[in-house]
Amino acid sequence: MDGETMDARTLMRDLGARARAASAVLATATPEAKRAAIEAAADAVAARETDILAANARDLATADARGLSGAMRDRLLLTPERLRGVAEALRAIAAQDDPVGQVIDAWERPSGLRIRRVRTPLGVIGVIYESRPNVTADAGALCLKAGNAVILRGGSESAQSSAALHGALCAGLRAAGLPEDAIQLVPTTDRAAVGAMLADMAEFIDVIVPRGGKSLVARVQAEARVPVFAHLEGVCHVYLDAAADPAKARAIALNAKIRRTGICGAAECLLIDRAALETGRRALGDLLDAGVEVRGDAECRALDPRVVSAAADDYGREFLDRIIAARVVDGVGGAIAHIRRHGSSHTESIVTEDDRAAARFFAELDSAILMRNASTQFADGGEFGMGAEIGIATGKMHARGPVGAVQLTTFKYLVEADCALRP
Amino acid sequence: MDGETMDARTLMRDLGARARAASAVLATATPEAKRAAIEAAADAVAARETDILAANARDLATADARGLSGAMRDRLLLTPERLRGVAEALRAIAAQDDPVGQVIDAWERPSGLRIRRVRTPLGVIGVIYESRPNVTADAGALCLKAGNAVILRGGSESAQSSAALHGALCAGLRAAGLPEDAIQLVPTTDRAAVGAMLADMAEFIDVIVPRGGKSLVARVQAEARVPVFAHLEGVCHVYLDAAADPAKARAIALNAKIRRTGICGAAECLLIDRAALETGRRALGDLLDAGVEVRGDAECRALDPRVVSAAADDYGREFLDRIIAARVVDGVGGAIAHIRRHGSSHTESIVTEDDRAAARFFAELDSAILMRNASTQFADGGEFGMGAEIGIATGKMHARGPVGAVQLTTFKYLVEADCALRP
Repeated sequence: MDGETMDARTLMRDLGARARAASAVLATATPEAKRAAIEAAADAVAARETDILAANARDLATADARGLSGAMRDRLLLTPERLRGVAEALRAIAAQDDPVGQVIDAWERPSGLRIRRVRTPLGVIGVIYESRPNVTADAGALCLKAGNAVILRGGSESAQSSAALHGALCAGLRAAGLPEDAIQLVPTTDRAAVGAMLADMAEFIDVIVPRGGKSLVARVQAEARVPVFAHLEGVCHVYLDAAADPAKARAIALNAKIRRTGICGAAECLLIDRAALETGRRALGDLLDAGVEVRGDAECRALDPRVVSAAADDYGREFLDRIIAARVVDGVGGAIAHIRRHGSSHTESIVTEDDRAAARFFAELDSAILMRNASTQFADGGEFGMGAEIGIATGKMHARGPVGAVQLTTFKYLVEADCALRP
Repeated sequence: MDGETMDARTLMRDLGARARAASAVLATATPEAKRAAIEAAADAVAARETDILAANARDLATADARGLSGAMRDRLLLTPERLRGVAEALRAIAAQDDPVGQVIDAWERPSGLRIRRVRTPLGVIGVIYESRPNVTADAGALCLKAGNAVILRGGSESAQSSAALHGALCAGLRAAGLPEDAIQLVPTTDRAAVGAMLADMAEFIDVIVPRGGKSLVARVQAEARVPVFAHLEGVCHVYLDAAADPAKARAIALNAKIRRTGICGAAECLLIDRAALETGRRALGDLLDAGVEVRGDAECRALDPRVVSAAADDYGREFLDRIIAARVVDGVGGAIAHIRRHGSSHTESIVTEDDRAAARFFAELDSAILMRNASTQFADGGEFGMGAEIGIATGKMHARGPVGAVQLTTFKYLVEADCALRP
């Protein structure tokens, strides 16, 4: 261990201890204080537009000097319009219901116990992300809304932009009288800081949320010694059943693939019931007409000559592009078997008018989200009515599906009685 | 790695793969089939009484030859009466509501999405326990009730007894037409099997539940690569507030300590408000009169000369015996500070008639269970109305407090629409 690594560990543990202390204050902060802090942060983002854009310009200059690719540069870019979007997202989070203290269940027992299960913050969240600077604002505000302290570790490419946005969040905390340690940005790009967050801060961090590409998420899942809320991949499937309404099937397959191809809810594989080949042929034609590369098995290629041959590893692959795998299967059972083998437990949709086929699809698959006659692109906290989300989780523990403020909480039991003794 | 260790790993991974396969069947098993299996297991326990007691006698003979202590021998002992208790516990689990498929939430969105959040099994549970053979039956049945496959790893002392009880569970599964691999007992006492469950079977085991002493739980928490539902210790506190009703204070302090001293919900520390010294003096006197050793600070010793001097590490210590630590604190704030420092996040009780003091105690502590005017001995799944429990968890993820069948589930979102496309 060299000196620099040692310093990063010490720095991170100090950050962790301060976050833990701040979390105790946040846990009893009023809904009004948290709302005021997030609104004041939105005001500060607007007021500091010039400074934030200047910081972003410095990041972009470094990126250009390093020859950053177009997509990565676009993720990094802030514009006046995007910055207004950041402020609006903050105001939307401020306006959401405060989850802390919500009574989830309440019941009484013959012994006289009156039991309530109420939401409480998780404590301290660690967020590790890549180049999008807006994650600094979104994740900071969502964690605060749920009463959690947060340690934000952004990518080195967006260091200046994230620091400028973090400054606006701190201004919000100050304005509301909340501790600034509630939202901390790791002030070093030393990669040892990430290692410390994953393996060396279990007493200070309750959950890690990675936001970024597959390699980042895989590393976090492999190395973290605390729970991780994440999905590794979104290999979402659309299955066109024998009893699919043809018009719905075509519209859903097209929307699920092409509305936005770079999001985790985009469809990556189209499964066609052998009893619905004509519907499948039309759906494939729509995709091909829209410029999508379809990689199919021999039966799909027989439906449309523009379909190219799928390699074995095209099934279960997250393209995040205008490419889709396709395959003919034997009914809902065949679709379930394919998804069990190749899916990533994120989101799958069945298009069918047959209640029994839908019921079987819902029962026998255990993805976080299962849909009927809806586009997989709806896999989103906003579309679910949860407000902003910090991401989508596919683990079985705690948070599954969209992770919004409510999912960033845990609970405790509050029990009241008039002198209850156990016999 | 020697040959035997290698064999244990291969054996365990085979067990894991079979459990995973069985879990897919169990996930869609009907409530009736699961209930029938557990009832048939209860019948088999009764029908096989002679064989099970003979197996237990063999375990006891081995234990006696090894000079096992009285308490450990008692935990191992089965009697006709205890075996009737095992069968009754199975019938109670059979009679509980089936959690799988329960709709937790349901709502509609302007987009036309109809969203339900429904309970689903976790998958495969690993249970690692020590000498109590009844855990074989309880844990096996609870996991089955929640639609999970389970891998049971009992202590070597109870190997014969556990195998006999496991035979009854398998008879139940057969009678109901469910796969016997749904409840597997690790057929080796090789300690490498535990290592494999903790570190080497993340693809086969979703959650580990350790049942036993602190050293077992600590090892599992340190080594497990999958989530753990457990509590390391139950260092439960009773705080007698200035506004405590004196009669309630005395009754609750006594019940919380002495009803049963060996359970995790037993009080291990009595905190006395400096403004309630007379109530505290009487509560200490009741405990001392009942033969409890009270280890207190100077102020407690001044209240009753029978109080002995507490060592620094008596605070935060789980005695599991007729011993209690005691301390005078400054009001509810002092009690909260003491519990934050020394507690184990299990269960704490405030005795007070003051709603504001109770509200502060509830808000500022984040133990899994907080009580007012009730004995900490109520920290129990049965007393909470959850039916049987597999244990009490103090982690912040997923299951907290008593872990019954409902807590051994996760959920998925089921989304229905009439052709919903995302704009």
